[in-house]
Amino acid sequence: MSENGSARRGRPGYDQRGILDVAVAAFNQYGYDATSMGVLADRLGLSKSAIYHHFASKDEILERALDEALGALEGVLEQSSLTEPVEGAARGRAADRLDHVLRGAVHVLVDKLAYVTLLLRVRGNTEVERRALARRRAFDKKVTALVSEAQAEGSLRSDIDASVVSRLAFGMINSIVEWYRPGGREDAGRLADDVIAVVLDGLRMPASNRIEELLG
Amino acid sequence: MSENGSARRGRPGYDQRGILDVAVAAFNQYGYDATSMGVLADRLGLSKSAIYHHFASKDEILERALDEALGALEGVLEQSSLTEPVEGAARGRAADRLDHVLRGAVHVLVDKLAYVTLLLRVRGNTEVERRALARRRAFDKKVTALVSEAQAEGSLRSDIDASVVSRLAFGMINSIVEWYRPGGREDAGRLADDVIAVVLDGLRMPASNRIEELLG
Repeated sequence: MSENGSARRGRPGYDQRGILDVAVAAFNQYGYDATSMGVLADRLGLSKSAIYHHFASKDEILERALDEALGALEGVLEQSSLTEPVEGAARGRAADRLDHVLRGAVHVLVDKLAYVTLLLRVRGNTEVERRALARRRAFDKKVTALVSEAQAEGSLRSDIDASVVSRLAFGMINSIVEWYRPGGREDAGRLADDVIAVVLDGLRMPASNRIEELLG
Repeated sequence: MSENGSARRGRPGYDQRGILDVAVAAFNQYGYDATSMGVLADRLGLSKSAIYHHFASKDEILERALDEALGALEGVLEQSSLTEPVEGAARGRAADRLDHVLRGAVHVLVDKLAYVTLLLRVRGNTEVERRALARRRAFDKKVTALVSEAQAEGSLRSDIDASVVSRLAFGMINSIVEWYRPGGREDAGRLADDVIAVVLDGLRMPASNRIEELLG
């Protein structure tokens, strides 16, 4: 939105957030390497030195952008451990915490679509990218531990490897960046419900299964 | 495999398939645009004219590579309509055909990992890429129709939009290219079972749900 003609005509005094939004859109469109500070300055209608007033380098812009997505995802995990306990337990069931994490991740993805898209394209070419990948791996590891816990407490099926479960679930969630467009038919809440319905409850109608079992 | 030193020392007479394998690996590593015929010739230890003996252009190599992945996926859909009919029906239930398609897609992905990876990166920059995207869309449309049919016959839950179901299911399947490595712990059959278990049956233990319902 800050990229269109009217914004440029007005030469708004971009704050860090405004510069970040424009930079992330450019990185996603052209690729990080192909987006020079000159291209960014041009898009923002600012001089390069005006950008350097906010960020020391293009690398720092990338780092802040990736932190935006990673911080939000990590926040979801932290909140999940504060999930309302059920039946007087000290902590919520692991399955309920996992439900919270999967829903929360869908919300982060929808709310920060461009930032998560950028994060998912990181391949580890620079030190900043490698740090981001390390944070993603730490996140995945905690989700896998949560799945294991839910399997151990007997609330999730344990015949699938916990790390495969977490990869498949986040593979599904992350794929949403490929087709989701804000303002479409599904809002974040609905989409989160759909993901939970598929991943936790499955698509097959239990009733029809049971009837088939009876009919043998 | 055709890229290693011993193969190059032998200067094997690459057939089309051998050239394709090496080209697809290079396209995935450097990107299609960044991979020149010179780079390919170098990797193959062939002259450019030797490559032109097999393919008229780099574009034709891409087209054949994408056709390899798309043809295999389309084949799975065609076979699915030949699924064994159940209980004397003229055709298998739509839910059984969908099961077949999802499993088949996992097998195609594992068998043709590099080719599917290339297909999933296509963004429509050239006429060849646009034709591949059109074939992907046609495939997605048929999967969505199959989901609708399964919902209508009452074997799949119908509270989720059929096109969202098909996107989420294939989002999960396609994400496997990000982490699957041949020779790992999961073979294609096991991975297909896992995907079916998550997408069709869900992770939640039905037993524990029922006990909770009883405990109310």
